[in-house]
Amino acid sequence: MAAVKLSKDIARVFVNSFDTVLFDCDGVLWAGSKVLYRAVETVNYLKDSGKQIFYVTNNSTKTRAQYLEKLMKLGFNADEKEIATSGYLVASYLESINFQQTVYLIGSKGFAEELRNHGIKHTQIGPDTMATDMPTYVNGQIELESEIGAVVIGFDEHLSYPKILKAANYLANPNCLFLASNADETFPMEIPLVVPGTGVMVKAVETASQRTAKVFGKPSVAMFEAISKQCKINPQRTLMIGDRCNTDISFGKNCQLTTLLVLSGVTSLKHLEQYKHDEQHILMPDFYTDVLGDILDLLEQ
Amino acid sequence: MAAVKLSKDIARVFVNSFDTVLFDCDGVLWAGSKVLYRAVETVNYLKDSGKQIFYVTNNSTKTRAQYLEKLMKLGFNADEKEIATSGYLVASYLESINFQQTVYLIGSKGFAEELRNHGIKHTQIGPDTMATDMPTYVNGQIELESEIGAVVIGFDEHLSYPKILKAANYLANPNCLFLASNADETFPMEIPLVVPGTGVMVKAVETASQRTAKVFGKPSVAMFEAISKQCKINPQRTLMIGDRCNTDISFGKNCQLTTLLVLSGVTSLKHLEQYKHDEQHILMPDFYTDVLGDILDLLEQ
Repeated sequence: MAAVKLSKDIARVFVNSFDTVLFDCDGVLWAGSKVLYRAVETVNYLKDSGKQIFYVTNNSTKTRAQYLEKLMKLGFNADEKEIATSGYLVASYLESINFQQTVYLIGSKGFAEELRNHGIKHTQIGPDTMATDMPTYVNGQIELESEIGAVVIGFDEHLSYPKILKAANYLANPNCLFLASNADETFPMEIPLVVPGTGVMVKAVETASQRTAKVFGKPSVAMFEAISKQCKINPQRTLMIGDRCNTDISFGKNCQLTTLLVLSGVTSLKHLEQYKHDEQHILMPDFYTDVLGDILDLLEQ
Repeated sequence: MAAVKLSKDIARVFVNSFDTVLFDCDGVLWAGSKVLYRAVETVNYLKDSGKQIFYVTNNSTKTRAQYLEKLMKLGFNADEKEIATSGYLVASYLESINFQQTVYLIGSKGFAEELRNHGIKHTQIGPDTMATDMPTYVNGQIELESEIGAVVIGFDEHLSYPKILKAANYLANPNCLFLASNADETFPMEIPLVVPGTGVMVKAVETASQRTAKVFGKPSVAMFEAISKQCKINPQRTLMIGDRCNTDISFGKNCQLTTLLVLSGVTSLKHLEQYKHDEQHILMPDFYTDVLGDILDLLEQ
């Protein structure tokens, strides 16, 4: 089983076969701070053609409102209800179960704000560094709070040993929930640098606590369930576009959507060859193309 | 298959069946700073009885010389050549391959000293914290060195996001070696606290780099090979004593030794029941007892 490369011959039929398009953001619409080739025109064209549009992102560092601001500023004709972030999903979930305790948060300002938007109390974010050595720390300096009912993990550039230690100790209580925004190992960047993602933080705490986090971001179907609650979506006429097979494409397959991989982010053609060799069907997209703007280019040819 | 509990009836035959005894340290001889029940008398008795003794520890935070000092201070009749630490193994390995570049070290003062003792250059240890946010950091502030030929991971209470990021970027070069002292998830402590171990650091860097570290500590046979180079050891007449099945007992089995689990550390009887249920033979010790000093108690009865 191989992925089909988008071409002029199939572009029109391909686009006509969908009513709804789900876009991953980092690596599809932009890389870091740089908008990718014709991404804005392509998304706006599809929306103007009457497609339902959703932005489905594993990034938990911004609230939905902040994402909307970024999208609008870059020229995307977007609306807040079209945006599903992994942080929003976690916060909505905690609100839905009427969570009343405090969250121990390994995460960002944006994630913290999303929790507060849903009425969820959380611990302080930002640096929590080790001022001494481990034996001194565990034998006296550590302060654990008693009201923690969940450990929640999102991207946190201040991940540190004390944070991992605290999370593992809260999780020693089997009643403490363990939730994560996503498990992406790295970020797609426009610079040639490996930038560790939330998956690193999740694995560190999972290893220390010997527990497994409930992950809300792609490839979990939680994101599809959340947007399906808002409006009717026919999976058979829905396209998922992403740059990363182990999150975006797996997500599409888990939700029985058609999948398109763009090669402007994490997954490369070399990876696709490997998936084919290993018969990893869950990672193999139905279609692929170099960059999102190719869709518009092909339609115009 | 179940483990046999040590009893008065078999204690003498059991002890007579070995010429060599390998001791794990944390959780067997001591927990944190507290010596466990009759540990010193038991080890010294076995040595006085003519057994070859080795201390085989995954702890990389002390040099062999520092371990010797601790053992002597506590009353163990020890000698430096009886001590094999995971840090010593890593340093010896790098020396054996004539490693000339610089090691990027996530580790402790003791590990750094062990590297220097073997003539291996390494980067500075200690805190390396994030003074800004990730985008600012990766777009300007990060400084990567060019002479790094290996990423080496040991226990480091100053683990941080910048350290994980740097390690992952050095490892993006496929010629860069990736070595770890050990993969223990936690430390056995005398206080009721979960204290994350080197395994957490290894998993974090493995996740970010999508590479797998070569681990020198138990259950790797590297430790047995190192002590076997020093003197003749007959595996059939050798006993491995440990408190942790996924390191100590697996190690013993990997080296075809007889294994004794003491319940004074990480692994509990509940775990043994689970291993039995799951048919995890590699984790099931041949014998078990509550604490090391039981051996002496049983011999004296």
